[in-house]
Amino acid sequence: MLKALNQEDIIEMLRTNFAGRIGCTDGDAVYIVPVNYVFEDDHILCHSLDGLKIEMMRHHPSICFQLDDIKDLRNWKSIIAMGIYEELYDTSSIENAAKKFTGQNLFRKASLSSAAPDEQDGRDRTAKPLSTPEVFYRIRITSLSGRCEQEV
Amino acid sequence: MLKALNQEDIIEMLRTNFAGRIGCTDGDAVYIVPVNYVFEDDHILCHSLDGLKIEMMRHHPSICFQLDDIKDLRNWKSIIAMGIYEELYDTSSIENAAKKFTGQNLFRKASLSSAAPDEQDGRDRTAKPLSTPEVFYRIRITSLSGRCEQEV
Repeated sequence: MLKALNQEDIIEMLRTNFAGRIGCTDGDAVYIVPVNYVFEDDHILCHSLDGLKIEMMRHHPSICFQLDDIKDLRNWKSIIAMGIYEELYDTSSIENAAKKFTGQNLFRKASLSSAAPDEQDGRDRTAKPLSTPEVFYRIRITSLSGRCEQEV
Repeated sequence: MLKALNQEDIIEMLRTNFAGRIGCTDGDAVYIVPVNYVFEDDHILCHSLDGLKIEMMRHHPSICFQLDDIKDLRNWKSIIAMGIYEELYDTSSIENAAKKFTGQNLFRKASLSSAAPDEQDGRDRTAKPLSTPEVFYRIRITSLSGRCEQEV
């Protein structure tokens, strides 16, 4: 049966997962990129290497965060958070954000959120110099919705 | 190690999965919606109930199809197909498309691709009349890219 997820189910999905997808646009083309994240009440904290995706979100801050759990065609959940891209600039906010990802051990090497697939050039990004600019940002959530289907 | 997926790996992922995500935009907001699909060489065949998502793609046909396999933060694959939304209109094309989904048994009830989460209103859509307009479309692929990370 197909039904809407309630707010508690949506929050539970956001709290218990670590990877989702961001959809962003330059006004014409759309990109979907997987990211790891930390959910915090009214926003979703993410980080990425500076690049095409970050540039797009700076210019078009209305973005979409999506998370799903698809077991099969009759048993799945999907949520989307519509939100606004807000980049973190001051050192203290960036350091605080970085600590929240520590448990995910993201700084050992390039992470899920490092670059859009079409920015990928086959180079081993683990070899990038440590000075590569890492951008921390949050998605301020403006709406949450979700649905699921469960075979009866 | 983070690396680009080659064309063969990308095609293999497209051939062996059944559900992905479409990213579409109205020029401002972005939506990501899960869809089931059939991959066919230069395009990806999908279907959805007529609604917000279909309307957006009609007006902004540059869309993104994304597929991933995330085991954990160090072992994952993600691909994106950039493409153009092309709706099927003639009866023969629609019938042919419908047959290709038969194996997925999609017409028994509302499917993964039926409606965007924010079109969801809590009603049991399995109760919708059979006359609900189902739209068949294909995403004509203009570029494919992908990357993966595998712990060494």
